[in-house]
Amino acid sequence: MDGAWYKEWDQGRQFIIKIKPGEKLRDRLSAFALQSGVKNAVIISAVGSVRHAFFRGIKAGAKRPITEPRMRQHQMDGPLELLGLEGNLITDDRGEIDCHLHIMLGKSSGDVVGGHLFDAEVFASCEILLTEMVVQGVERHISKSAGTPTIFISEE
Amino acid sequence: MDGAWYKEWDQGRQFIIKIKPGEKLRDRLSAFALQSGVKNAVIISAVGSVRHAFFRGIKAGAKRPITEPRMRQHQMDGPLELLGLEGNLITDDRGEIDCHLHIMLGKSSGDVVGGHLFDAEVFASCEILLTEMVVQGVERHISKSAGTPTIFISEE
Amino acid sequence: MDGAWYKEWDQGRQFIIKIKPGEKLRDRLSAFALQSGVKNAVIISAVGSVRHAFFRGIKAGAKRPITEPRMRQHQMDGPLELLGLEGNLITDDRGEIDCHLHIMLGKSSGDVVGGHLFDAEVFASCEILLTEMVVQGVERHISKSAGTPTIFISEE
Repeated sequence: MDGAWYKEWDQGRQFIIKIKPGEKLRDRLSAFALQSGVKNAVIISAVGSVRHAFFRGIKAGAKRPITEPRMRQHQMDGPLELLGLEGNLITDDRGEIDCHLHIMLGKSSGDVVGGHLFDAEVFASCEILLTEMVVQGVERHISKSAGTPTIFISEE
Repeated sequence: MDGAWYKEWDQGRQFIIKIKPGEKLRDRLSAFALQSGVKNAVIISAVGSVRHAFFRGIKAGAKRPITEPRMRQHQMDGPLELLGLEGNLITDDRGEIDCHLHIMLGKSSGDVVGGHLFDAEVFASCEILLTEMVVQGVERHISKSAGTPTIFISEE
Repeated sequence: MDGAWYKEWDQGRQFIIKIKPGEKLRDRLSAFALQSGVKNAVIISAVGSVRHAFFRGIKAGAKRPITEPRMRQHQMDGPLELLGLEGNLITDDRGEIDCHLHIMLGKSSGDVVGGHLFDAEVFASCEILLTEMVVQGVERHISKSAGTPTIFISEE
């Protein structure tokens, strides 16, 4: 298809994951994938609260590829309500699980902040619902033109 | 698994729910669960608009458990675009459906606000897509250490 | 059910869609639906980055129906992190796919903005996960009382 690629995937197992206070989101999702044998998955829902959230935004006016001087990093100690965690877990070109996660967080003022997630620690609770994707020919590796790890579909 | 629990669930029925203007989100979701016989479910998508949104954030620097003096409550009359509604419906220890909902709302300024949802009223429309989870050994009750109702998985 | 309607749908195919830099989100989703034969679908996840985002909010104090003087439009050049894309694709009363999309975007400041999406252009990457809904008797057309295209369920 011009301008886009698409591919069907089969639904695998579905999981509820509860992460303990004090644990890191990305670490625990990677450990979950390793232990359960999940190779590819998508997050369908997440609610809870976090602290020590470390994420980035892209500077206005930046060009591609997204390099470090074109990003702005944020560290927020919180605690903050975990309002949204979007993303997917895809096996990369070294056979390792790569979590691409974006986070949205509620401050006590009611304002919402967020960005591309490096990591965050669970504060009081964290409930994640996730669907395993059974698919061949999908892989994540660095895109030179984008500057970030990106899904590649074998038909590309 | 260290630092987290996980459990598989089976996908049940899938529903589209349209809530009328003037109705409360939480009330209608609870009534839907009662009438359809859904015991556990996860929201996969919601779009629409709301007014009289009542939600909370956690104060910066707060400690666990999350008690009322450690929260800040917000009442926003709006109307506001309903940009995200994340959460799940889980049967609690009294056999009643407990909706854990986080909301994200767009102001006319373009700024996004949100938090842990107490309730909100549908303004012009509200379209919710929801998946029933068929699972045993998952229950919600108050966590003393977190201060909030939390999912408990029987293996814990 | 008083105050709401609901209807079961069957899960159809599931797709991963990768949209190229420089392409418009809404255009590519519509083209995908046409090419794949998808009539109704729901977005379950989206991550990436966009620029030239054009969206609207509802003015505080506005009444129904939502008419143009009651909205405020925003054009943001970005680039911005794509933190959330919520919505559904439903066939309308003329047999055409209508995408109802709400977007949430992260600025370099960490602040999140968003609203009802007119359109946005992919910046570095865009990964969308989508589920086909197989359902009869669901259609989108303009609601006179809401002022916006809205899902109608045949039982209404």
